[in-house]
Formats: sequence, C-alpha cells, structure tokens
Amino acid sequence: MKEQTVLRGFRFSAVSARVKEKGPERPDLGLIVSDSVCITAAVTTTNLVYAAPVELTRERLAGGSCMAILANSGNANACTGRRGRDDAVNLTGEVARVLGIDPELVVPMSTGVIGVPLPVERMTGQIPALAAGLDPSRHGDFARSIMTTDLVPKTAVVEGSLSHCSIKLVGAAKGSGMIAPNMATMLAAVLSDVRVDIGFLRECLAEACEVSFNRITVDGDTSTNDTLVVMTGGASDAADLGSAELDRRTFATMLARVCTDLARQIVLDGEGATKVVTIRVRGARGKPDATRIARVIAESPLVKTAFHGEDPNWGRVLAAAGRAGVEFDPRVVDLFIGPVAVLHDGAPVEGDWERSAHAVMQEREWEAVLDLKSGQAEAELLTTDLSEEYVGINADYRS
Amino acid sequence: MKEQTVLRGFRFSAVSARVKEKGPERPDLGLIVSDSVCITAAVTTTNLVYAAPVELTRERLAGGSCMAILANSGNANACTGRRGRDDAVNLTGEVARVLGIDPELVVPMSTGVIGVPLPVERMTGQIPALAAGLDPSRHGDFARSIMTTDLVPKTAVVEGSLSHCSIKLVGAAKGSGMIAPNMATMLAAVLSDVRVDIGFLRECLAEACEVSFNRITVDGDTSTNDTLVVMTGGASDAADLGSAELDRRTFATMLARVCTDLARQIVLDGEGATKVVTIRVRGARGKPDATRIARVIAESPLVKTAFHGEDPNWGRVLAAAGRAGVEFDPRVVDLFIGPVAVLHDGAPVEGDWERSAHAVMQEREWEAVLDLKSGQAEAELLTTDLSEEYVGINADYRS
Repeated sequence: MKEQTVLRGFRFSAVSARVKEKGPERPDLGLIVSDSVCITAAVTTTNLVYAAPVELTRERLAGGSCMAILANSGNANACTGRRGRDDAVNLTGEVARVLGIDPELVVPMSTGVIGVPLPVERMTGQIPALAAGLDPSRHGDFARSIMTTDLVPKTAVVEGSLSHCSIKLVGAAKGSGMIAPNMATMLAAVLSDVRVDIGFLRECLAEACEVSFNRITVDGDTSTNDTLVVMTGGASDAADLGSAELDRRTFATMLARVCTDLARQIVLDGEGATKVVTIRVRGARGKPDATRIARVIAESPLVKTAFHGEDPNWGRVLAAAGRAGVEFDPRVVDLFIGPVAVLHDGAPVEGDWERSAHAVMQEREWEAVLDLKSGQAEAELLTTDLSEEYVGINADYRS
Repeated sequence: MKEQTVLRGFRFSAVSARVKEKGPERPDLGLIVSDSVCITAAVTTTNLVYAAPVELTRERLAGGSCMAILANSGNANACTGRRGRDDAVNLTGEVARVLGIDPELVVPMSTGVIGVPLPVERMTGQIPALAAGLDPSRHGDFARSIMTTDLVPKTAVVEGSLSHCSIKLVGAAKGSGMIAPNMATMLAAVLSDVRVDIGFLRECLAEACEVSFNRITVDGDTSTNDTLVVMTGGASDAADLGSAELDRRTFATMLARVCTDLARQIVLDGEGATKVVTIRVRGARGKPDATRIARVIAESPLVKTAFHGEDPNWGRVLAAAGRAGVEFDPRVVDLFIGPVAVLHDGAPVEGDWERSAHAVMQEREWEAVLDLKSGQAEAELLTTDLSEEYVGINADYRS
C-alpha cells in the first residue's frame, strides 16, 4: 500500500547517479519540487570558502522565490572554481528544462568530497528518471539521497493549528559529526504548507537556527556547503500565514521545533558518537563568555575522550574552561554531571560522587553544567564523545 | 661502568613513590639539585586554572633563585584547593630539610590526573631515598620520572663555547600529545653550567619559548600545570655569562636550540601520533592572522584524520582556513604538500599531484604550506595526525 502525501503541494524523488564513482550504488541525487512558486528563505555557511551551489543558492533566493531543490551527496562541488559554478548552473538548468520551470527557481545543494569536479554527465543522465520518480510520498527517499557518513536518514514532521487552518512543517536533513568546527556539512530542507511572507520567514528562520543548528554549529564555524532552505506554500491554493500575532508565533515555534529536532538527530548520529552531552555554562557575565567556554569544553578532545570512557574526569572540564580566554574565578565554580555535584566552590565535593557521576555518564544522553557564579548569563551546546570509530570514519573518508 | 657527569654542578635522582596507587611500579618522583644557588627563570601556564605547584613555583622564583626541582608524575595536584598548596609546601619543605637548604629554594612540578589530592605520605616516605640517590649521571632517570603517556623520555644536550669558557645546556622534558589545546601538561627543566643574570635569562627564555614550545602550544592555550624552569650556574665556581654581546647571543641561541629540540620530541611522541606535520601559513597580512589560520588547520580533526589516512584531501585544509575568522581571498591561495603544489590560485593544479602528494604524506615528517598571497607575514606550527590510538590512550587515562 502506498504511503500518503507527506505535505500537500510538494513532491520528492531520489535516484542513484553514481556521483562517487567507486562507491556502492545508492541514491545520491535527490529532488524536491513544489506545485507552485514558494516563498523561500535560506541560511548558508559563514565559511569564507563556500561551494558553488552555495553561491548559486544565495543568488537565486535573493528574491525569496523557489520551486525546486536539487541535492546530491558524494561530492560537495566546493573549491572547483569556475567549472564548479558552471556545473551547478547546468545541472539545475537541466532540472528546470525537464520540469518546465524557470531555472532561477531551482537551487542546488551538494555535500561530499571537496575539490573534485562533479560527474556532470552521469548526473545529467539521471535527471529524467529523477523527475519521473517525483511523488508526494517519497520524502524519506530524498532524505536518504543526501546522506554521507550519516548512519540514518533524518526527517521531522510537526503539525499544528492556526486560527484559519491547520498547518504542517516537514523537514529533511543530513549531517553527522561532532560539534563545529569538526562537523561535516549540514544540509536541510524544511517545507511548509502555509505561505509565509519573506520578511517574517527570514526573521523566524534566524531565530530557529539560533536555538537549533547554532547550538551544534557555533556562529562562524561551518563547512563549505552548509545550507538550510525553507520553502513555504507549495500548493497553488496554499493558505497564507496572515498577520495575526498568535498565528505568527505558532509558525515561528513550529519552525524552531522542526529545526531543533533535525539538529538533535544530527548530533545523535555524530560520527562514531556513543554519547550526546549537553554542555551548559551558567553564571557567566555575558552570553558570549558562556558560549565561548561551553564551546572550548565541547570541542576539547581530552574532555570528549573522557566522556567516551565514562570517566568523570572533571579536571579536564575545568582545565578546558580555564583556557577559553574568559575571566572567571576557578575557586568558586560548581560542576554537575547530570544531577550529581562533583565540584563545589572549585573543590571536589565529599562522598562518593565518582560512582554516581560515572553512572550518569553510562547513559546515552546527559548534561554537564558548569556554574561560574559570576553573572546571570548562560549558554548551552550539544556535543558528542570522541571514539576510535570517529577517527576510522574520517581517516578513510575518501578511500 | 658508571655514566659520566652530565653537567657540572647538578645532581639528579628518581624513585617510585606509587603516586598513582593502582599503576605499575615505576619512577614517578624526581629531583634535580644544584651545588649552589642558581639564577633561575621560569615560564608557566597561562591557563586561568593553574595547579598548586605552579602557584608555588611562581612565588618562589619571583626573586630568580633556586637550588632544587621536585617533580612528580601521576598526579597534577591541580584543582585540589588549599590542601593542594599545603601538600606542595610540605613536600618541598621535606626535600629542603633532608638536603639542608632553604625551602624557598625548592620548586615543585607535577603532572598527571587533575582534582585528586597527592598521596603525600607515600611521597614523603620516599624523599630520603630520593635524596640518597642523587648522582651527577642520573639525568635520564629524572626524565623518566616525569613521564605520563610519553612513550620515551626526552632529554637534550647542547654544547658550545663562549669567549672565556665552554658552555653546556642540558634539558629534560615530558609532554606527549597533540598541539594545544589538546596537549597534555608540558614540564621541562633546562640547566646551564654558566650563570646568567636574571634579566637577560628571562629575556632569552621568552625568545626561546617563542620559537619552540609556543609553536606547539600557542599562547594562552595551556594545561593547568605547564612549567619550564631554567637554572643557571649550578657549581659554586660556575663562570658568569658576562656582558659580551656575542657570548650573550651564543647563550640565547643555545637555549633556543635545547627548547626546540625538546618541543620537537614532544610532538614526535604525540599521543598515538604517526606523523609530524609542520603547518606553515605565509602571505598573510599579519602574524596573528597567519598564526590563527595555522592553528585552526593544525587542530582540525578532519585535517588530522586525513593526515592519518595519508589522504591529500586539500579541501579540508582550505575549509579549515576558511573558518579561522581571518579575511583572505580563497580564489588566489596556493597549497603545497611538501614540495608538491596541489592548489594554485584556489584551484586544483593539473596533472597527477595526488599520487605525488600521497607519497609525501607517507613519510613520517612533512610540511604543508598555505600561501594566502595577501601579505608578507607567516607563522608555523607543528602538529600530528589523529589516530585511533589517541582516543584509546585518552579514554582510558584514569582507569
């Protein structure tokens, strides 16, 4: 029996184009098409080195309109110079031709190896099959086509009600890896059946990123290809969000929820990760200070290997905080592993905290809280442990 | 047959004090003693969180005089509060008592686990044996006593001539790990048979660090215990360096050479390292820019795992540079792996660079050069690859 329509106004497809010539045959070319022109916003990488598809996506979404996303895994089309741009233009042009739409309404997304030209002929040859396979139910196939080292495809659906209609948001993402700057490329597409005016859409998208992807990819530290595209109003008779304040807050909240769900799935699927740990720093003088410290802790290989070993080695956490370049008094800080206090006023607590903290760390997900007790600001980041498997995955990436 | 005196005016010793109760029996308490008061300078960690021995060393070397270094591995005596300081005072006091010298002339150094009190009784009990074992030849034993995850002890000797006498510098160090902030504690002692006035000694030490340890531990990113102590003029009749400019430059150069030798040994012994790679960034607008980019490349797990896999995945290098927060034009940069140009004007070069670059990467030591072509400044850092073994070492550290 056939799956039902995922989201009215959108169709999905995926085929194998053998983008990575030597890899196993798997879907690596994906397509999302809307029935009518969508109001569309995007957030792309802040890396100085950005890929050709990112450049084209920025240009084509400047006006806020889009009808299709062409995505591929296996090759990032990054650092490929003039040819990379031509390839992205030609591939999206071919999609537009086959679909009979304006090429300016097609945006590309790529992920995979950097610095190698796309196998354009093989990819172009598959575009008719890709278009022929479009179906309202194939959302999961699209999610699979953008996977690289991901172990599982990542999708999210959120439903709700506005004052004048029901509303649904559907997301698909790829990304697997540790917290930035170690993170592999993150690609995501979020679709809404309600049409949202571009100004408000861009505003909500920035907010949604702040509480989701920015907790795993701190500002400024992104790959060459990171892209999140949000298309709204796929059906020609799609309802408009309207200007009612409550409806607008509802949409914003739902968008944040989809993004948070996808971001968490990316961390959970971290390369070789066996743990997902929230690093929360509170009591800081300002949010930038809290973020900076949370990040140094979240990125420290010594901290992350201790997480992997389920070792409540709080000295590594404190030592990481101490080198973050932020002033605080280490003699007053408290540290908690889950609910277990391990450090109070800068000194180890009495009693058998080690056994209790170790028990918390044996869980798959837990939280570490560092309280600097010098202010009111706080920040949190999600990170993973660092396992032998991570190294294996990344050392062998291109072979 | 007995080894010869390593350096006139100095004696060395090491014993096992089972600092780490559950570890195998090995020398973990070391001592260096000079025959007379040495002019002594030190560089210690810039981490906000510094250990009790660091605090005491700073205080006791404020006047530039020292006769003994008491060092231990297995426990950092860091984040141990008031008790940690008392322990350091008591242990060095006991050494002073046994040696019959002023306790203010004994400085402590510790490395190992953070946050656990020192086993003072076990250590104190071994101090008489430690003092009894002092011998001019036991320099290597001292180096072994400060090892933690080090695979080999690290020592260096440099000899030269001044206008009025010959001169010798001897160093011992421990440290094993990747480039900071991932590096474990670095401890080093450098000894000179010539007495150097404190102002000039401090000046040369800063310079020597800049070209050695600071290339592996970029400013500000250090562990809780990092300490480098330089003692000069161990014998009561030791010659003074004097004020002749050429002699002073000779001493400064020799000190830099000992430090460089020790720093390189630390990188070579990097935890699980199979490669030592120099990251050189040139053509930057300023040295801070060059250093920042070199550092982001040198610390990137994706870059380091590619080094491990001997994969000339230059895209990862360029992507790391792009997120360093430094403005440059990626369309003009050149990248070399050893002598092999892999990227010219931001695009892959023609020909079979991949095979040649791979051949370079199969070597144990090689250099990557990124030329930004936007200025005259350059910086270099040493780093290692990231292997599965690194993770194993650090996940199991305390078990």
